[in-house]
Amino acid sequence: MFAAIMAGGSGTRFWPASTAERPKQFLKLFGDRTMLEHTIDRLEGLSDDSGIAIICGERHGPVCRGLVAGREIVVMTEPVGRNTAACIGLAALHFQKLDPDEPIAVLPADHYIGDVEGLRRILSAAATLARAGGIVTIGVVPTSPETGFGYVEAGEEGREVDGVAWRSVRRFVEKPARDVALTYLASGVHYWNAGIFVFTARTILAAIRTCMPELWVGLERIDVDLGSDRERDAIAEVYAGLDSVSIDYGVMERTTATVSVIPASIGWSDLGSWPALAELRAGERDEHGNIVPTGSVAIDAESCFVSAGFERPVALLGVKDLIVVDAPEGLLVASRDRAQDVRLVTERLATRRQNPER
Amino acid sequence: MFAAIMAGGSGTRFWPASTAERPKQFLKLFGDRTMLEHTIDRLEGLSDDSGIAIICGERHGPVCRGLVAGREIVVMTEPVGRNTAACIGLAALHFQKLDPDEPIAVLPADHYIGDVEGLRRILSAAATLARAGGIVTIGVVPTSPETGFGYVEAGEEGREVDGVAWRSVRRFVEKPARDVALTYLASGVHYWNAGIFVFTARTILAAIRTCMPELWVGLERIDVDLGSDRERDAIAEVYAGLDSVSIDYGVMERTTATVSVIPASIGWSDLGSWPALAELRAGERDEHGNIVPTGSVAIDAESCFVSAGFERPVALLGVKDLIVVDAPEGLLVASRDRAQDVRLVTERLATRRQNPER
Repeated sequence: MFAAIMAGGSGTRFWPASTAERPKQFLKLFGDRTMLEHTIDRLEGLSDDSGIAIICGERHGPVCRGLVAGREIVVMTEPVGRNTAACIGLAALHFQKLDPDEPIAVLPADHYIGDVEGLRRILSAAATLARAGGIVTIGVVPTSPETGFGYVEAGEEGREVDGVAWRSVRRFVEKPARDVALTYLASGVHYWNAGIFVFTARTILAAIRTCMPELWVGLERIDVDLGSDRERDAIAEVYAGLDSVSIDYGVMERTTATVSVIPASIGWSDLGSWPALAELRAGERDEHGNIVPTGSVAIDAESCFVSAGFERPVALLGVKDLIVVDAPEGLLVASRDRAQDVRLVTERLATRRQNPER
Repeated sequence: MFAAIMAGGSGTRFWPASTAERPKQFLKLFGDRTMLEHTIDRLEGLSDDSGIAIICGERHGPVCRGLVAGREIVVMTEPVGRNTAACIGLAALHFQKLDPDEPIAVLPADHYIGDVEGLRRILSAAATLARAGGIVTIGVVPTSPETGFGYVEAGEEGREVDGVAWRSVRRFVEKPARDVALTYLASGVHYWNAGIFVFTARTILAAIRTCMPELWVGLERIDVDLGSDRERDAIAEVYAGLDSVSIDYGVMERTTATVSVIPASIGWSDLGSWPALAELRAGERDEHGNIVPTGSVAIDAESCFVSAGFERPVALLGVKDLIVVDAPEGLLVASRDRAQDVRLVTERLATRRQNPER
């Protein structure tokens, strides 16, 4: 099957490690490989390199190409971000030329998945449903009443495919309030919308044509020049006029195609904050619950997480429940229960850049 | 009067800012000048440049000379540290050649003094006592039951000199236990021995001759070559065989010369730790008690102290009572009540350098 890896994220929730120049998908948060590389690695056995496309912002084109140097993986760049509908449409144009009826897995480049075998099994089953003309979304079985995610509400169960259960989608729901999220957690029919989808180019482009006619017109214009010298100009001209719409809102909720969800318990995390990363790397904790780089010193320290980008030692002395991130762009020292608010820091820094006297 | 600035300290209590290469006297802990420069500044109006000598370790000779470049201040280097008796003896040899009867103020290079005018008034009065053949020590009026300092126990009061009170010294006492320190705090006759002394070269060399005959023999050997090409070799040969003895223990406690103490309340601090520095810089606190460098961000942070050696921003988020020090040699994140134990960190790092597998 094909794979479209969406690497257009520009978040700075991992400041100071992540910046506009180096968003999360390009960080080595686990071992020696970037999140993008881990995402590619998960496709082993599912997709040949020539069937993988990475879609990223133009400023990140060089780093993406560097990461896949020597491989047949295609890197497509967007001049501006226009949300997932445009991005997926662009990828679908590319794959349509290779084989309009081969399923395409759409995967965000910056998520964590603990059970890679589970993911592969689910994507294979999703491919079977996609070959039959369906649009498949992976629904992560919720483990907490998250208010930061969209949810998929499931309907009837279908017949298992290769031992994988799936259900029809009743509706997509926006980020819920806390009390609603609690009912979703208990309902057994609500799943986190993880932004992982499977469909063929033919199916998704037909759905875009019906549900998002303006985007369709733009994609047709791009399609004429795709693969030629004019490609970049054509994309730039079209993108400038596009609305920013998600594929969920623009297509999934409106299409007449069959949309189904495969419930997944695959150790998924959108890895939205430093504390979330610290949880996922719990296996690296020392006997006092600290996760510190080699060469560091933790004395009477407890439950701290240190990420360091330099060779010099980091010393913790008598501290508890801290997140410490040492990167070229800045140094963060945060309490574990506040580190998810790092955007407050980046906002303050941005304000200061605009008004240096503040 | 002359001034001998003792800049031989090698402590790392301000790790990671201070290191063996750059001990505390060379740090800019207050504003844009090093502790050594602040020490020199305090001599304005008391000593001409040609009457000032800095005594430091050989490895720090170049940095000392750099700090006083273009001035007539003399820098003398010791091949190895042999405590204050040898250092003061060496300085006395130098000043003896200029004028054996001119008082010499001995000043540690790495202390803080808040009331510089007070210090000058006291040193002037001490010079008067020194001209009469006395050995004078400055006794800091204790403000807490410190167990880390030696104390001077005062005897009878003398007649005020230029409005400055002084007393005879009954004895010097070693670092006391806590309960003893409490009685000292209340006694009214015990003062912190701050390592600031005044005497003439003639007086101190005579006292050394009597009390420390071995040191005296060494100094005589050095004196022959002082100022010649042989000076450095002579010092090296003599120092190798010297015992490490403090002037207090080696001379002050044994001499038959008159030893007196001038009680001083001059905002003195030996600046023994990061928390001590944070206290002294209390005037820089923001409305939440934080002391952070320009360009940093403190959000919901309270009573934190940040010292940063780089241009990049430091962000504090939801943390309290922390000492954060960002320096080329390392990064320290310590709770305020443990930061005085930073030697635990340097010991651990030293152990690791010797046994890389630990």
